[in-house]
Amino acid sequence: MTTEVKPSTRERLLEAAATLTYRDGVGIGIDALCKAAGVSKRSLYQLFESKDELLATSLEERASAFVTGLLPPADDGRSPRERILHVFDQLEEQAGAPEFHGCRYLAAQIELKDQSHPASQVARRVKGNLTAFFRAEAEQGEASHPDLLARQLSMVFDGASARAGIEADKLTGLVTPTVATLLDAAGMH
Amino acid sequence: MTTEVKPSTRERLLEAAATLTYRDGVGIGIDALCKAAGVSKRSLYQLFESKDELLATSLEERASAFVTGLLPPADDGRSPRERILHVFDQLEEQAGAPEFHGCRYLAAQIELKDQSHPASQVARRVKGNLTAFFRAEAEQGEASHPDLLARQLSMVFDGASARAGIEADKLTGLVTPTVATLLDAAGMH
Repeated sequence: MTTEVKPSTRERLLEAAATLTYRDGVGIGIDALCKAAGVSKRSLYQLFESKDELLATSLEERASAFVTGLLPPADDGRSPRERILHVFDQLEEQAGAPEFHGCRYLAAQIELKDQSHPASQVARRVKGNLTAFFRAEAEQGEASHPDLLARQLSMVFDGASARAGIEADKLTGLVTPTVATLLDAAGMH
Repeated sequence: MTTEVKPSTRERLLEAAATLTYRDGVGIGIDALCKAAGVSKRSLYQLFESKDELLATSLEERASAFVTGLLPPADDGRSPRERILHVFDQLEEQAGAPEFHGCRYLAAQIELKDQSHPASQVARRVKGNLTAFFRAEAEQGEASHPDLLARQLSMVFDGASARAGIEADKLTGLVTPTVATLLDAAGMH
Protein backbone atom coordinates (compact mmCIF):
# COMPACT_ATOMS: atom_id res chain seq x y z
CA MET A 1 0.00 0.00 0.00
CA THR A 2 1.25 3.44 -0.82
CA THR A 3 0.29 6.50 1.13
CA GLU A 4 -0.63 9.45 -1.00
CA VAL A 5 0.22 12.70 0.73
CA LYS A 6 -2.18 15.36 -0.43
CA PRO A 7 -1.76 18.92 0.75
CA SER A 8 -4.26 19.74 3.45
CA THR A 9 -6.89 22.44 3.08
CA ARG A 10 -4.75 24.65 5.28
CA GLU A 11 -1.67 24.06 3.13
CA ARG A 12 -3.56 24.78 -0.07
CA LEU A 13 -4.89 28.03 1.33
CA LEU A 14 -1.45 29.14 2.50
CA GLU A 15 0.07 28.24 -0.86
CA ALA A 16 -2.65 30.13 -2.75
CA ALA A 17 -2.26 33.15 -0.47
CA ALA A 18 1.51 33.22 -0.92
CA THR A 19 1.36 32.76 -4.68
CA LEU A 20 -1.51 35.13 -5.45
CA THR A 21 -0.49 37.95 -3.13
CA TYR A 22 3.03 37.83 -4.55
CA ARG A 23 1.76 37.94 -8.11
CA ASP A 24 -1.28 40.21 -7.73
CA GLY A 25 -0.83 42.06 -4.44
CA VAL A 26 -2.32 41.92 -0.95
CA GLY A 27 -5.61 43.31 -2.26
CA ILE A 28 -6.44 39.90 -3.77
CA GLY A 29 -10.00 38.91 -2.87
CA ILE A 30 -11.13 36.05 -0.65
CA ASP A 31 -13.08 34.55 -3.55
CA ALA A 32 -10.00 34.36 -5.76
CA LEU A 33 -7.98 32.81 -2.92
CA CYS A 34 -10.64 30.18 -2.24
CA LYS A 35 -11.00 29.41 -5.93
CA ALA A 36 -7.25 28.97 -6.43
CA ALA A 37 -7.03 26.74 -3.36
CA GLY A 38 -10.16 24.78 -4.28
CA VAL A 39 -11.55 25.50 -0.84
CA SER A 40 -14.89 26.92 0.33
CA LYS A 41 -15.10 30.23 2.17
CA ARG A 42 -16.62 28.34 5.07
CA SER A 43 -13.49 26.17 5.29
CA LEU A 44 -11.25 29.22 5.10
CA TYR A 45 -12.99 30.85 8.04
CA GLN A 46 -12.88 27.62 10.02
CA LEU A 47 -9.08 27.66 9.70
CA PHE A 48 -8.30 31.37 9.76
CA GLU A 49 -10.00 34.15 11.66
CA SER A 50 -9.65 36.58 8.78
CA LYS A 51 -7.91 37.22 5.50
CA ASP A 52 -5.37 39.27 7.49
CA GLU A 53 -4.49 36.21 9.55
CA LEU A 54 -4.23 34.03 6.43
CA LEU A 55 -1.90 36.57 4.87
CA ALA A 56 0.26 36.88 7.97
CA THR A 57 0.50 33.08 8.32
CA SER A 58 1.41 32.64 4.65
CA LEU A 59 4.28 35.14 5.03
CA GLU A 60 5.40 33.40 8.20
CA GLU A 61 5.45 29.99 6.48
CA ARG A 62 7.57 31.35 3.66
CA ALA A 63 10.16 32.76 6.05
CA SER A 64 12.29 29.63 6.26
CA ALA A 65 12.44 29.35 2.45
CA PHE A 66 13.40 33.04 2.33
CA VAL A 67 16.24 32.46 4.79
CA THR A 68 17.60 29.27 3.22
CA GLY A 69 17.33 30.81 -0.24
CA LEU A 70 19.53 33.73 0.76
CA LEU A 71 21.72 32.98 3.77
CA PRO A 72 24.78 30.72 3.78
CA PRO A 73 24.83 27.73 6.15
CA ALA A 74 26.16 28.52 9.63
CA ASP A 75 29.92 28.05 10.00
CA ASP A 76 30.55 27.18 6.36
CA GLY A 77 34.19 28.14 6.72
CA ARG A 78 33.94 31.22 4.53
CA SER A 79 34.88 34.71 5.65
CA PRO A 80 32.18 37.12 6.83
CA ARG A 81 32.80 39.15 3.67
CA GLU A 82 32.15 36.10 1.48
CA ARG A 83 29.11 35.17 3.53
CA ILE A 84 27.59 38.62 3.00
CA LEU A 85 28.37 38.53 -0.72
CA HIS A 86 26.67 35.12 -0.86
CA VAL A 87 23.34 36.75 0.07
CA PHE A 88 23.61 39.19 -2.82
CA ASP A 89 24.72 36.47 -5.26
CA GLN A 90 21.58 34.57 -4.32
CA LEU A 91 19.45 37.66 -4.74
CA GLU A 92 20.98 38.30 -8.15
CA GLU A 93 20.23 34.72 -9.20
CA GLN A 94 16.65 34.86 -7.90
CA ALA A 95 16.05 38.21 -9.59
CA GLY A 96 16.91 36.65 -12.96
CA ALA A 97 13.84 34.40 -12.85
CA PRO A 98 10.85 35.64 -14.91
CA GLU A 99 8.47 35.17 -11.95
CA PHE A 100 10.57 37.42 -9.69
CA HIS A 101 8.63 40.45 -8.49
CA GLY A 102 10.96 41.66 -5.75
CA CYS A 103 11.05 40.85 -2.05
CA ARG A 104 7.63 39.67 -0.88
CA TYR A 105 8.23 41.07 2.60
CA LEU A 106 9.02 44.54 1.32
CA ALA A 107 6.08 44.47 -1.11
CA ALA A 108 3.65 43.39 1.61
CA GLN A 109 4.66 46.28 3.85
CA ILE A 110 4.52 48.83 1.02
CA GLU A 111 1.12 47.58 -0.10
CA LEU A 112 -0.47 47.25 3.34
CA LYS A 113 0.66 50.75 4.40
CA ASP A 114 -0.10 49.80 7.99
CA GLN A 115 2.78 48.74 10.20
CA SER A 116 0.36 47.37 12.80
CA HIS A 117 -1.16 44.88 10.35
CA PRO A 118 -0.29 41.31 11.44
CA ALA A 119 1.27 40.59 8.03
CA SER A 120 3.40 43.76 8.23
CA GLN A 121 4.64 42.64 11.62
CA VAL A 122 5.68 39.25 10.25
CA ALA A 123 7.42 40.94 7.31
CA ARG A 124 9.19 43.35 9.61
CA ARG A 125 10.49 40.51 11.79
CA VAL A 126 11.71 38.44 8.81
CA LYS A 127 13.56 41.40 7.33
CA GLY A 128 14.88 42.35 10.77
CA ASN A 129 16.49 38.92 10.90
CA LEU A 130 18.27 39.63 7.62
CA THR A 131 19.63 42.90 9.03
CA ALA A 132 20.70 41.00 12.16
CA PHE A 133 22.59 38.49 9.99
CA PHE A 134 24.42 41.35 8.26
CA ARG A 135 25.24 42.93 11.61
CA ALA A 136 26.59 39.69 13.08
CA GLU A 137 28.80 39.10 10.03
CA ALA A 138 29.94 42.73 10.07
CA GLU A 139 31.01 42.34 13.70
CA GLN A 140 32.70 39.04 12.95
CA GLY A 141 34.55 40.65 10.04
CA GLU A 142 35.57 43.60 12.21
CA ALA A 143 33.78 46.22 10.14
CA SER A 144 34.54 49.73 11.34
CA HIS A 145 30.83 50.46 12.01
CA PRO A 146 28.93 47.15 12.02
CA ASP A 147 25.58 48.77 12.66
CA LEU A 148 25.94 51.24 9.79
CA LEU A 149 27.14 48.50 7.45
CA ALA A 150 24.15 46.29 8.34
CA ARG A 151 21.76 49.17 7.62
CA GLN A 152 23.54 49.95 4.33
CA LEU A 153 23.36 46.34 3.19
CA SER A 154 19.66 46.14 4.10
CA MET A 155 19.03 49.32 2.12
CA VAL A 156 20.90 47.96 -0.90
CA PHE A 157 19.06 44.65 -0.59
CA ASP A 158 15.68 46.38 -0.66
CA GLY A 159 16.64 48.84 -3.40
CA ALA A 160 18.07 46.07 -5.56
CA SER A 161 15.17 43.69 -5.16
CA ALA A 162 12.60 46.46 -5.66
CA ARG A 163 14.24 47.70 -8.85
CA ALA A 164 14.67 44.21 -10.25
CA GLY A 165 11.07 43.40 -9.28
CA ILE A 166 9.65 46.32 -11.27
CA GLU A 167 12.12 45.69 -14.10
CA ALA A 168 13.73 49.10 -13.65
CA ASP A 169 17.15 47.46 -13.67
CA LYS A 170 18.94 44.13 -13.67
CA LEU A 171 21.25 43.26 -10.81
CA THR A 172 24.14 41.87 -12.86
CA GLY A 173 27.17 44.11 -12.62
CA LEU A 174 25.35 46.33 -10.15
CA VAL A 175 24.71 44.74 -6.79
CA THR A 176 28.03 42.93 -6.27
CA PRO A 177 30.23 45.96 -7.04
CA THR A 178 28.05 48.12 -4.80
CA VAL A 179 28.23 45.73 -1.86
CA ALA A 180 31.98 45.23 -2.41
CA THR A 181 32.49 49.01 -2.27
CA LEU A 182 30.57 49.25 1.01
CA LEU A 183 32.47 46.27 2.48
CA ASP A 184 35.78 47.84 1.42
CA ALA A 185 34.85 51.16 2.98
CA ALA A 186 34.01 49.36 6.25
CA GLY A 187 37.40 47.63 6.16
CA MET A 188 35.93 44.13 5.81
CA HIS A 189 38.17 41.61 4.12
CA MET B 1 -14.45 92.45 -7.23
CA THR B 2 -12.24 89.60 -6.26
CA THR B 3 -11.92 86.48 -8.31
CA GLU B 4 -12.13 83.33 -6.29
CA VAL B 5 -10.14 80.57 -7.90
CA LYS B 6 -11.75 77.29 -7.00
CA PRO B 7 -10.10 74.08 -8.07
CA SER B 8 -11.88 72.57 -11.03
CA THR B 9 -13.55 69.17 -10.94
CA ARG B 10 -10.57 67.78 -12.80
CA GLU B 11 -8.10 69.29 -10.30
CA ARG B 12 -10.07 67.94 -7.33
CA LEU B 13 -10.13 64.46 -8.84
CA LEU B 14 -6.39 64.52 -9.54
CA GLU B 15 -5.65 65.77 -6.04
CA ALA B 16 -7.86 63.09 -4.46
CA ALA B 17 -6.27 60.38 -6.62
CA ALA B 18 -2.74 61.50 -5.70
CA THR B 19 -3.50 61.81 -1.99
CA LEU B 20 -5.56 58.65 -1.54
CA THR B 21 -3.42 56.32 -3.65
CA TYR B 22 -0.33 57.52 -1.82
CA ARG B 23 -1.94 56.94 1.56
CA ASP B 24 -4.03 53.84 0.85
CA GLY B 25 -2.63 52.29 -2.32
CA VAL B 26 -3.61 52.02 -5.96
CA GLY B 27 -6.46 49.65 -5.05
CA ILE B 28 -8.49 52.59 -3.71
CA GLY B 29 -12.03 52.44 -5.08
CA ILE B 30 -13.72 54.84 -7.47
CA ASP B 31 -16.40 55.59 -4.87
CA ALA B 32 -13.82 56.70 -2.30
CA LEU B 33 -12.07 58.86 -4.90
CA CYS B 34 -15.30 60.53 -5.96
CA LYS B 35 -16.34 61.08 -2.36
CA ALA B 36 -13.01 62.66 -1.42
CA ALA B 37 -13.12 64.91 -4.48
CA GLY B 38 -16.79 65.77 -3.99
CA VAL B 39 -17.46 64.72 -7.57
CA SER B 40 -19.99 62.33 -9.10
CA LYS B 41 -18.93 59.17 -10.89
CA ARG B 42 -20.58 60.54 -13.99
CA SER B 43 -18.29 63.60 -13.86
CA LEU B 44 -15.26 61.40 -13.33
CA TYR B 45 -16.02 59.36 -16.43
CA GLN B 46 -16.68 62.50 -18.44
CA LEU B 47 -13.14 63.65 -17.66
CA PHE B 48 -11.22 60.38 -17.55
CA GLU B 49 -11.71 57.24 -19.58
CA SER B 50 -10.99 54.99 -16.64
CA LYS B 51 -9.55 54.85 -13.15
CA ASP B 52 -6.28 53.76 -14.77
CA GLU B 53 -6.15 56.98 -16.77
CA LEU B 54 -6.98 59.08 -13.68
CA LEU B 55 -4.18 57.34 -11.78
CA ALA B 56 -1.66 57.81 -14.59
CA THR B 57 -2.59 61.49 -14.99
CA SER B 58 -2.33 62.12 -11.24
CA LEU B 59 1.21 60.65 -11.21
CA GLU B 60 2.10 62.72 -14.25
CA GLU B 61 0.86 65.93 -12.61
CA ARG B 62 2.96 65.26 -9.52
CA ALA B 63 6.13 64.77 -11.54
CA SER B 64 7.18 68.42 -11.54
CA ALA B 65 6.77 68.64 -7.74
CA PHE B 66 8.81 65.43 -7.43
CA VAL B 67 11.60 66.92 -9.54
CA THR B 68 11.68 70.35 -7.89
CA GLY B 69 11.50 68.74 -4.44
CA LEU B 70 14.61 66.68 -5.11
CA LEU B 71 16.80 68.12 -7.83
CA PRO B 72 18.97 71.22 -7.52
CA PRO B 73 18.40 74.12 -9.91
CA ALA B 74 20.32 73.86 -13.18
CA ASP B 75 23.76 75.47 -13.09
CA ASP B 76 23.62 76.42 -9.42
CA GLY B 77 27.40 76.66 -9.30
CA ARG B 78 27.86 73.62 -7.11
CA SER B 79 29.98 70.64 -8.02
CA PRO B 80 28.34 67.52 -9.49
CA ARG B 81 29.16 65.73 -6.23
CA GLU B 82 27.32 68.37 -4.21
CA ARG B 83 24.41 68.35 -6.62
CA ILE B 84 24.00 64.59 -6.23
CA LEU B 85 24.24 64.85 -2.44
CA HIS B 86 21.56 67.56 -2.58
CA VAL B 87 19.04 64.99 -3.89
CA PHE B 88 19.70 62.69 -0.93
CA ASP B 89 19.59 65.57 1.56
CA GLN B 90 16.17 66.42 0.20
CA LEU B 91 15.06 62.79 0.42
CA GLU B 92 16.27 62.61 4.02
CA GLU B 93 14.33 65.73 4.88
CA GLN B 94 11.14 64.53 3.15
CA ALA B 95 11.43 61.12 4.82
CA GLY B 96 11.34 62.80 8.23
CA ALA B 97 7.75 63.98 7.71
CA PRO B 98 5.05 61.83 9.39
CA GLU B 99 3.03 61.59 6.16
CA PHE B 100 6.00 60.17 4.22
CA HIS B 101 5.28 56.68 2.86
CA GLY B 102 8.19 56.32 0.45
CA CYS B 103 8.49 57.21 -3.22
CA ARG B 104 5.04 57.27 -4.83
CA TYR B 105 6.48 56.21 -8.18
CA LEU B 106 8.15 53.13 -6.74
CA ALA B 107 5.06 52.23 -4.70
CA ALA B 108 2.77 52.55 -7.73
CA GLN B 109 4.92 50.17 -9.77
CA ILE B 110 5.23 47.65 -6.93
CA GLU B 111 1.50 47.75 -6.27
CA LEU B 112 0.33 47.64 -9.88
CA LYS B 113 2.62 44.68 -10.73
CA ASP B 114 2.05 45.43 -14.38
CA GLN B 115 4.70 47.37 -16.25
CA SER B 116 2.34 47.97 -19.18
CA HIS B 117 -0.20 49.81 -16.98
CA PRO B 118 -0.35 53.49 -18.02
CA ALA B 119 0.46 54.60 -14.45
CA SER B 120 3.49 52.25 -14.32
CA GLN B 121 4.72 53.77 -17.55
CA VAL B 122 4.46 57.29 -16.13
CA ALA B 123 6.27 56.16 -12.96
CA ARG B 124 8.98 54.49 -14.97
CA ARG B 125 9.58 57.63 -17.03
CA VAL B 126 9.70 59.92 -13.98
CA LYS B 127 12.21 57.66 -12.20
CA GLY B 128 14.15 57.22 -15.43
CA ASN B 129 14.63 60.99 -15.44
CA LEU B 130 16.13 60.80 -11.95
CA THR B 131 18.60 58.15 -13.10
CA ALA B 132 19.40 60.35 -16.12
CA PHE B 133 20.12 63.28 -13.78
CA PHE B 134 22.52 61.10 -11.78
CA ARG B 135 24.21 59.93 -14.97
CA ALA B 136 24.65 63.45 -16.32
CA GLU B 137 26.16 64.65 -13.04
CA ALA B 138 28.38 61.55 -12.87
CA GLU B 139 29.72 62.33 -16.34
CA GLN B 140 30.19 65.97 -15.45
CA GLY B 141 32.07 64.96 -12.31
CA GLU B 142 34.22 62.53 -14.27
CA ALA B 143 33.10 59.44 -12.39
CA SER B 144 35.07 56.36 -13.42
CA HIS B 145 31.88 54.53 -14.51
CA PRO B 146 29.05 57.08 -14.84
CA ASP B 147 26.48 54.51 -15.86
CA LEU B 148 27.25 52.22 -12.91
CA LEU B 149 27.22 55.15 -10.49
CA ALA B 150 23.84 56.33 -11.78
CA ARG B 151 22.40 52.83 -11.31
CA GLN B 152 23.89 52.59 -7.82
CA LEU B 153 22.46 55.94 -6.78
CA SER B 154 19.03 54.99 -8.14
CA MET B 155 19.17 51.73 -6.19
CA VAL B 156 20.13 53.55 -2.99
CA PHE B 157 17.40 56.12 -3.60
CA ASP B 158 14.75 53.42 -3.93
CA GLY B 159 16.08 51.33 -1.03
CA ALA B 160 16.30 54.37 1.23
CA SER B 161 12.87 55.73 0.42
CA ALA B 162 11.25 52.28 0.66
CA ARG B 163 12.79 51.55 4.05
CA ALA B 164 11.93 54.98 5.42
CA GLY B 165 8.41 54.64 4.00
CA ILE B 166 7.74 51.38 5.86
CA GLU B 167 9.51 52.71 8.97
CA ALA B 168 12.15 49.97 8.79
CA ASP B 169 14.87 52.61 9.19
CA LYS B 170 15.50 56.32 9.34
CA LEU B 171 17.75 57.93 6.78
CA THR B 172 19.78 60.10 9.14
CA GLY B 173 23.37 58.93 9.34
CA LEU B 174 22.65 56.31 6.69
CA VAL B 175 21.97 57.68 3.25
CA THR B 176 24.59 60.45 3.11
CA PRO B 177 27.52 58.24 4.22
CA THR B 178 26.42 55.55 1.76
CA VAL B 179 26.22 57.95 -1.16
CA ALA B 180 29.52 59.57 -0.16
CA THR B 181 31.21 56.15 -0.18
CA LEU B 182 29.88 55.39 -3.66
CA LEU B 183 30.92 58.83 -4.94
CA ASP B 184 34.40 58.37 -3.44
CA ALA B 185 34.76 54.95 -5.05
CA ALA B 186 33.81 56.45 -8.42
CA GLY B 187 36.44 59.16 -7.95
CA MET B 188 33.93 62.01 -7.85
CA HIS B 189 35.02 65.05 -5.92
